[in-house]
Amino acid sequence: MSDKLRVAVLGATGIVGQRFVARLSKHPWFELEGVYASYDKAGLRYREAVKWVINEAPDESIMETRVEKIDIDLIARENYDLVFSALPSTIAENIEVELAKRGVKIVSNASPLRLEQDIPLINPEVNADHIKLLNAQKKRGWKGWIAKVPNCSTAILTLALKPLHQAYGISRVIVVTMQAVSGAGLKGVPSPLIIDNIIPYIKGEEEKIVQESRKILGLFNGRIVMPASFEVLAFTTRVPVIDGHMEAVFVELEETPRSEEDIIELLERYHDNKIETLRLPSAPKRPVVVREEVDRPQPRLDRMAGNGMSVTVGRLSVNGKMIKMIVLGHNTIRGAAGNGVLIGELAYKLNLI
Amino acid sequence: MSDKLRVAVLGATGIVGQRFVARLSKHPWFELEGVYASYDKAGLRYREAVKWVINEAPDESIMETRVEKIDIDLIARENYDLVFSALPSTIAENIEVELAKRGVKIVSNASPLRLEQDIPLINPEVNADHIKLLNAQKKRGWKGWIAKVPNCSTAILTLALKPLHQAYGISRVIVVTMQAVSGAGLKGVPSPLIIDNIIPYIKGEEEKIVQESRKILGLFNGRIVMPASFEVLAFTTRVPVIDGHMEAVFVELEETPRSEEDIIELLERYHDNKIETLRLPSAPKRPVVVREEVDRPQPRLDRMAGNGMSVTVGRLSVNGKMIKMIVLGHNTIRGAAGNGVLIGELAYKLNLI
Amino acid sequence: MSDKLRVAVLGATGIVGQRFVARLSKHPWFELEGVYASYDKAGLRYREAVKWVINEAPDESIMETRVEKIDIDLIARENYDLVFSALPSTIAENIEVELAKRGVKIVSNASPLRLEQDIPLINPEVNADHIKLLNAQKKRGWKGWIAKVPNCSTAILTLALKPLHQAYGISRVIVVTMQAVSGAGLKGVPSPLIIDNIIPYIKGEEEKIVQESRKILGLFNGRIVMPASFEVLAFTTRVPVIDGHMEAVFVELEETPRSEEDIIELLERYHDNKIETLRLPSAPKRPVVVREEVDRPQPRLDRMAGNGMSVTVGRLSVNGKMIKMIVLGHNTIRGAAGNGVLIGELAYKLNLI
Amino acid sequence: MSDKLRVAVLGATGIVGQRFVARLSKHPWFELEGVYASYDKAGLRYREAVKWVINEAPDESIMETRVEKIDIDLIARENYDLVFSALPSTIAENIEVELAKRGVKIVSNASPLRLEQDIPLINPEVNADHIKLLNAQKKRGWKGWIAKVPNCSTAILTLALKPLHQAYGISRVIVVTMQAVSGAGLKGVPSPLIIDNIIPYIKGEEEKIVQESRKILGLFNGRIVMPASFEVLAFTTRVPVIDGHMEAVFVELEETPRSEEDIIELLERYHDNKIETLRLPSAPKRPVVVREEVDRPQPRLDRMAGNGMSVTVGRLSVNGKMIKMIVLGHNTIRGAAGNGVLIGELAYKLNLI
Repeated sequence: MSDKLRVAVLGATGIVGQRFVARLSKHPWFELEGVYASYDKAGLRYREAVKWVINEAPDESIMETRVEKIDIDLIARENYDLVFSALPSTIAENIEVELAKRGVKIVSNASPLRLEQDIPLINPEVNADHIKLLNAQKKRGWKGWIAKVPNCSTAILTLALKPLHQAYGISRVIVVTMQAVSGAGLKGVPSPLIIDNIIPYIKGEEEKIVQESRKILGLFNGRIVMPASFEVLAFTTRVPVIDGHMEAVFVELEETPRSEEDIIELLERYHDNKIETLRLPSAPKRPVVVREEVDRPQPRLDRMAGNGMSVTVGRLSVNGKMIKMIVLGHNTIRGAAGNGVLIGELAYKLNLI
Repeated sequence: MSDKLRVAVLGATGIVGQRFVARLSKHPWFELEGVYASYDKAGLRYREAVKWVINEAPDESIMETRVEKIDIDLIARENYDLVFSALPSTIAENIEVELAKRGVKIVSNASPLRLEQDIPLINPEVNADHIKLLNAQKKRGWKGWIAKVPNCSTAILTLALKPLHQAYGISRVIVVTMQAVSGAGLKGVPSPLIIDNIIPYIKGEEEKIVQESRKILGLFNGRIVMPASFEVLAFTTRVPVIDGHMEAVFVELEETPRSEEDIIELLERYHDNKIETLRLPSAPKRPVVVREEVDRPQPRLDRMAGNGMSVTVGRLSVNGKMIKMIVLGHNTIRGAAGNGVLIGELAYKLNLI
Repeated sequence: MSDKLRVAVLGATGIVGQRFVARLSKHPWFELEGVYASYDKAGLRYREAVKWVINEAPDESIMETRVEKIDIDLIARENYDLVFSALPSTIAENIEVELAKRGVKIVSNASPLRLEQDIPLINPEVNADHIKLLNAQKKRGWKGWIAKVPNCSTAILTLALKPLHQAYGISRVIVVTMQAVSGAGLKGVPSPLIIDNIIPYIKGEEEKIVQESRKILGLFNGRIVMPASFEVLAFTTRVPVIDGHMEAVFVELEETPRSEEDIIELLERYHDNKIETLRLPSAPKRPVVVREEVDRPQPRLDRMAGNGMSVTVGRLSVNGKMIKMIVLGHNTIRGAAGNGVLIGELAYKLNLI
Repeated sequence: MSDKLRVAVLGATGIVGQRFVARLSKHPWFELEGVYASYDKAGLRYREAVKWVINEAPDESIMETRVEKIDIDLIARENYDLVFSALPSTIAENIEVELAKRGVKIVSNASPLRLEQDIPLINPEVNADHIKLLNAQKKRGWKGWIAKVPNCSTAILTLALKPLHQAYGISRVIVVTMQAVSGAGLKGVPSPLIIDNIIPYIKGEEEKIVQESRKILGLFNGRIVMPASFEVLAFTTRVPVIDGHMEAVFVELEETPRSEEDIIELLERYHDNKIETLRLPSAPKRPVVVREEVDRPQPRLDRMAGNGMSVTVGRLSVNGKMIKMIVLGHNTIRGAAGNGVLIGELAYKLNLI
């Protein structure tokens, strides 16, 4: 009998679900005891139910686990210490809210509720303190709680923005993303649409970047989060890359930085004291890696930096208050499941579980 | 008022449906008067209902046509001269049979029924005479008829095999296909599965090649088709190519051919006298194009040969009774809609419509 | 004996060279009489010397032409009416200058000299009047002249910027490009570097966009071109797309535009009166095509708009003085050879040849 | 001072060179002391000289090593215990022979000399005993020796063929390969040729498969290798995949195998006793992995099996004496550098170094 925390994954067969399973099935603190998927997969062994596509192998034993159907009462009755949700946005809200009412604690990658005032939207090294918003959820009458993983592009972006915002204040961000197909899930981007092509539109993505980045970089006053006030302009595109979102970013600061070297140092040395002290297993040594080669970062070469949890910055230049840089991160690790696991680790260490 | 034949397309929004629409909307003999799709698309203009992905533009006026739902009675009542079906295999059989009962004449790209004894499976330059099987369908009590377009890989393969079989007899065919993603339809191959990858399996494809190639190259004795007796061994794979199936083919002949030059001449000069005489608009001048460059055919460079209706053969060599060659054809033109239109043209000229 | 103008292509075997050959070998005004390439290819028939990769076929007769070596005196002695240069940048300057001294008139796609004060950098529908700079070249003692085709990304960009600059004045442009591999020439981007990847750097490209766009949109006062004064910030990336550069563009205007509809109309109705009057064969009917579908333009679907000579704008939105849009054009047609041919046509109609 | 064997890599900056460096810089028995490349790179630090593209990181210290030029006398003077050659075929023969004359022991991935009677062509688990051919090289007057790594496709193929040949005898092999672009080296396949495409020709590859597979599976009688007598027919193609060669294989056996299960067991349990006993660090636990999922092996999912040293077999079926199977292996690991390192380990354990 393990004394690890008992956890489960909802929506375990999709790409983000696979990442959750890969990382939780070998986790030092968590014991993955339940994998949940849609009704047509319930009853199958996980091995039969999943079409494995990610380049990370789970513990073999989890492959033999029976897949359970997503039944709210059954899940609530299992008394998991923590549940990770990779449910599709279309069905997530209702299920997660009903589970929270019944006492389930949930770290969710689904987009609904992310902007609610009492729902923390956590990128741990950026805004771990926002997690205290969980207390406010009691007013909803929930016995459990819901913490949200940010949108993938936004998680990657805000990690690179935080050190700049902290030091000089950001007044405007212009960002153009080139996003990997895995970000749309297994069936999101049919291959006849994307080979030898780019699609310059991802539904809802630009709004998410605009709104979520302000919330994540907002100030928590102990009661509510005051969104940061900088302007964000975004174009998001889909490119024929498997994993790794690249973002071309133009940041206008409120103050002129001392020098380019200063900016590089701010990024490279960036860390969050609390996260470091807590020694969370999924936290990368260096949240932000700066590369000085002229042609980096590249998705294929840099997406696995920090085991997929670091973002890599390159082609950085400073001109007055304007900073140009290319930011890259792994969309289903730092931008989804890896970040979710890190939030779970944080919640555990803060005695929220 | 046009004096063209009135035709319709069922399943008009998929990739093969788009090809049918592109070629029929500008056809000299056919007037495309109906585009039919699933219930959720019915009522929309075709422009709104379709996600256009092929590199061939239809006549603009068809884009404004209202999409109709696939209702058997409504279709039958329209009294089209000919209906082209690009319905999914899962639903095609019942719909097509019910339509045939009600008097509708159908050229169908769907796989069900292809191997039925009284259903002609037509690759026009190869086995136009099999179309007389249509007469046998009266015994089913059908007022209309159904003619079938062969499987994509098989249509391409049999066009290259016919001249060899005719001259020397084939005893065995070993074929390995590298098939384009468009062959699986719009959503058949999700991009996260195929970028930087090959999938060495296509459900049902190898069986289709084995069985259909024998039927197509079989002998019609005026009553039934006696399948050719050669053995076929096939491996089929999916590759990250948009359009164009490539096939590496090893053919064992019954007799030793005179020379490599003779084989090249057989292929290049191959034609079907009847088809030539009928002057069908979709028939390519040269059904088989032989290229002598050492690195051809290639999908991107050769798939549009003969406006997508020719197959291209290259890397041909002869060693005793064994012929090695690479065969390439456009899977949604020669392998589907283009072939379907050609069958329609043939049926018209033979007074079957 | 043709009464067409006698023309030649230097660097005829590369990707841009192939486009020049494809378009000039079937041109109503020009007769392609010479194809020139490096010494190792001289003496071969063009068919043997070229590795054809573009999706446009030249006239078959040109394939049999003997390739000539690039010998300055020999070329000068041929007295071509016009010479098109697709020479590599590394060797172009010296050869082109020596030819101009000897009386040769050259439209060149090579980057050297583009920013020289007396060298016109022409995007015909944008700044046809700059071509009068050719007169100033007499001061160099040249008997011939050199006109330059702009950088590919810049040609595409400035065509979309011109109507905005003309109507409201541009104060700043921020652009992120996603450029096709053909832009680097046949061997510029090795496949192991770009499959499942993006390279966020193209040598010299960002500087070219910054400087050339100001020159092209500059004011010609009859003597010199005063570069436009707007600021340009650019990131350029290479993506796994064969043809078609996509650009995500943020334009800050000097004045607030009346409405989004007004901007769309400005773009769609944009034309240059002089170019229209001259009826140049390569000029597209609509230099700028605006698409209102939410997911267009896309390289594979829109690169051939206007036979590759139109740029397509989509996802346009206006917020105060800020305009966001996605711009797409064919990099080796509008961005290179097609533009070069159009410049040649312009020069002919203006009696400069 | 390390007591490891001192080794060097010639041609250290190419793709195979990078694999050698990655695996030797962290090797338990070998100390990588020299990295050699062409004259234009000599003098640079390895970090500056190499364009790193593989997904495996070398020890960081090797990145600071000075690159040496390939000077025969200088290399000979270094008295390395073993030298690994990833030189291009065009220059390898002369350099390797001159080094061998001067006493250097070489494991070479270059194709020249592979078919010479006294040169062992080693795929360790298949034909380790052939390494005794090295003794015969003394007759050439060489103080050192040369052992050759097989062609990439052949190394992968013969590992899967060996257990079948051993048990039942092979009479004929028909193979169609789908080869990754990394097999042609960094610049071998320009991206404009391979995106959305397949090239059905690789220079010299088919001959190599035919001849080398017979030599590798040949019998060593203590003096010479008698090539196996089976017939091999091969088509080789290049596909848009980064790493991992897939091979569709049809094997005709001399005897009818007992059952499909027997064949699977033969493959799965295959090992070479000697190799197992020697406990070579690069030898995979299971040289051949059999997968029973209907759609495996796939390059992206299976190329790293056994740390890139196993081949994966799938879609196996038996029909009389005919076996069909898909074989996949990592072309630059099992098919090149990984195999080379394994040969080096073997030579060391057999006291040949």
